[in-house]
Amino acid sequence: LTDRLLSHPGRLSILYFLTLIALVTLLLLLPFATRGWVFTNFPVAFFTAVSALSTCGIPVVNTAEYWSAFGQVVILLSIQFGGLGVMTFASMVALGVSRRLKVSQRMLTASELGTNKLSEIKSVLSVVLGTSIIAEALTFVLLLPDLFHLNHGNVGRTLWEALFYAVSAYNNTGFTPDATGLHINRWGVGLPILLSAFVGTLGFPVVLNLVQCARRRMSPKRWTLHTKLTLTTTGILVLASLAWFLLVEWSNSALFPADDPGMKLRRALSAAVMPRSAGFDISWVPEVTDETKVLMSALMFIGAGSSSTAGGIRVTTFAVIVLICCASFTGHRDVVVFRRRLPRRIQMTAVSVMTACFALVLVGSVALMFVTGCDFVDAVFETCSAFSLGGYSVGVANAGNPACLFILAAAMIVGRLGPLTIAYAISRPMAPEPIRYPQENIIVG
Amino acid sequence: LTDRLLSHPGRLSILYFLTLIALVTLLLLLPFATRGWVFTNFPVAFFTAVSALSTCGIPVVNTAEYWSAFGQVVILLSIQFGGLGVMTFASMVALGVSRRLKVSQRMLTASELGTNKLSEIKSVLSVVLGTSIIAEALTFVLLLPDLFHLNHGNVGRTLWEALFYAVSAYNNTGFTPDATGLHINRWGVGLPILLSAFVGTLGFPVVLNLVQCARRRMSPKRWTLHTKLTLTTTGILVLASLAWFLLVEWSNSALFPADDPGMKLRRALSAAVMPRSAGFDISWVPEVTDETKVLMSALMFIGAGSSSTAGGIRVTTFAVIVLICCASFTGHRDVVVFRRRLPRRIQMTAVSVMTACFALVLVGSVALMFVTGCDFVDAVFETCSAFSLGGYSVGVANAGNPACLFILAAAMIVGRLGPLTIAYAISRPMAPEPIRYPQENIIVG
Ligand SMILES: [K+]
Ligand SMILES: [K+]
Repeated sequence: LTDRLLSHPGRLSILYFLTLIALVTLLLLLPFATRGWVFTNFPVAFFTAVSALSTCGIPVVNTAEYWSAFGQVVILLSIQFGGLGVMTFASMVALGVSRRLKVSQRMLTASELGTNKLSEIKSVLSVVLGTSIIAEALTFVLLLPDLFHLNHGNVGRTLWEALFYAVSAYNNTGFTPDATGLHINRWGVGLPILLSAFVGTLGFPVVLNLVQCARRRMSPKRWTLHTKLTLTTTGILVLASLAWFLLVEWSNSALFPADDPGMKLRRALSAAVMPRSAGFDISWVPEVTDETKVLMSALMFIGAGSSSTAGGIRVTTFAVIVLICCASFTGHRDVVVFRRRLPRRIQMTAVSVMTACFALVLVGSVALMFVTGCDFVDAVFETCSAFSLGGYSVGVANAGNPACLFILAAAMIVGRLGPLTIAYAISRPMAPEPIRYPQENIIVG
Repeated sequence: LTDRLLSHPGRLSILYFLTLIALVTLLLLLPFATRGWVFTNFPVAFFTAVSALSTCGIPVVNTAEYWSAFGQVVILLSIQFGGLGVMTFASMVALGVSRRLKVSQRMLTASELGTNKLSEIKSVLSVVLGTSIIAEALTFVLLLPDLFHLNHGNVGRTLWEALFYAVSAYNNTGFTPDATGLHINRWGVGLPILLSAFVGTLGFPVVLNLVQCARRRMSPKRWTLHTKLTLTTTGILVLASLAWFLLVEWSNSALFPADDPGMKLRRALSAAVMPRSAGFDISWVPEVTDETKVLMSALMFIGAGSSSTAGGIRVTTFAVIVLICCASFTGHRDVVVFRRRLPRRIQMTAVSVMTACFALVLVGSVALMFVTGCDFVDAVFETCSAFSLGGYSVGVANAGNPACLFILAAAMIVGRLGPLTIAYAISRPMAPEPIRYPQENIIVG
């Protein structure tokens, strides 16, 4: 049985997440998990468990005020196991492809993924774990001085907050241990979190490839295609949203409390980097214009890097779709980028993932409108945030509305497991078609 | 020059539409075109010209009350020339593909399009014209009795209204010559218009194929793949929206004024058929729930048949996308439907048309939100209606806001010419790629 499960990372990841969701929900239902020693109702406990395990991070109760120390530890461990789980499974899926190819092709694929030293599942796990621990430890240490100052010298509280922030940032969850929210305006707290969250969104294969190339002093030209495409697309998205926030929200006093250009730049930068996955610093979100909500929904839907703790359809999926359009409109048959041709199967996967996820978000949004009566723009925002594990909320998620919590929790579970499972299903070796039907043209467009 | 233009239906159609838009705008600017002998301001005249020529039909002034008899004749002719233009050009594009193939393939393609008797542009034009005249004449005759009754025996008015409705219905424009709107609740008026509009949405190649097969008593199994796919998808969309209107809007008194199940069924049927393109009977549209606005936006975006006067990305494009997803998720390499394989180029075209049009609608909606301050759901609805030539309005189009009129007019022009031009660009024979780059895998999803 173990063998069968291990040979199917898709099934294994579903089993892993569902077991953890059940376990964490049970733990959070205990009165011991709350500050007030009360029985949390089932929808709230279930929603918080799913939100933490999927590294989405939408809160329905104030994490610092409602949950006890025990509850917060459970949430922290959920984030850590959720993040590790998805990175490990995603890498296993990526390797699973190569394990079925011939040795020569396998070497090629493996080196493309930046994982040519990992031939076994155990090594994948240890490298993922190692990377996480290094990144989180770095963030933890960098956060200590300023948090120590902010907590007026309370050592225990400083250590706890630094640990919580470090785990929450690298895993892109966005839960905060402080009732007043994130001190984003202090560089000492904001910058390590921003950087850690940004590295987390790139995804494990990109980080590993960058580290390897830097060690061997290889020029950026020799990065893998996946690394080039992820970094380029991420860069364009971040710059475009930075420009948008500065232009459109310049006079929004909720986002930019003081009229200081330096502060505006800092906050716009955090607003540009965070939405695609991290979801920290959420106090200003319900105050933005509807236009910005639409932009943020689109950014969240696109999401971050593949095999990262972030969600969405992934930047590479988005890039492939754009490249297919460019090729079509210029009358080319091959989809080419950085002097490489994209395989046909990758193109089909990208189209399918985007279409299925778009349909899901649309259906989820309309369902939310039915059960909460909220605006379309808010429903889209909240569904995109849940599906893409963004973690922002414009207030539709409401502890008093179980139907709404279940819809959003379902969006999170699908957002966490869906693209992975789809990618796995498609990455299976395709049997040669038993019957090949004749072609027939139709008219489209 | 004529030769060069005729050999490029894409260029020719752009020239044709831009010339007509300029001419009609000039005519509508004349005081003679209005009942009040006033100079219409430029945005309103331009918007009305574009709305009529693109067969979109969103009104910003009451057609019957604002425009004089001369103005209404100009609008009627615009609808007719707009509709004929697009059907002719679309058929030319479809034939243009076959004219560049070898003779054997050409015979195949031509017979697939249901146009194997048309080898020349002149014959295309005459068949399109003939089909239009037959369909419009039938509608005209069927409308006479009830309109005569409604107009209390006024013969001149009856003839004029029947002509206007007949042209407006088959060309799917939705302008009404009656200040009080369409008498949809009388079968004598509603049914001929509904049927004529429905036939118009199927598109010229489907209608021709159906007529030919019926003449030769061929079984539906021998319909072309294009006909099968268009009819199946249209059927599913109509049934799904019929069910939606009956379930969700059952107690909406604007859509269903009386509590009579028979009447509810009639109006729900018209609401289910019309949105994808016709746009008659618009009084109830602003009164529907936000959920229904989202559904109608999606239906309008999908649109109707290829080479029809209707717009949208077309039902076949939508069907191809769904089929690509089904093939991916079941691990198949070939995209198969009705025992036929869809060519690779058709798949790329469908993906490109859908993505480009979606991006256009999103940008247009956000632009509308900036200039009018309306809700996201209304902006999406209005942009979808303009882009897809649906002709419904929830009141965002406003004679007093030129920026808004220009954005919507731009959406209509792109909606009319865009998919056609894209399809043409892609249908060009592809040069063999001069350089074939090596493949490299990336991770998506
Ligand atoms: K998050
Ligand atoms: K219309």
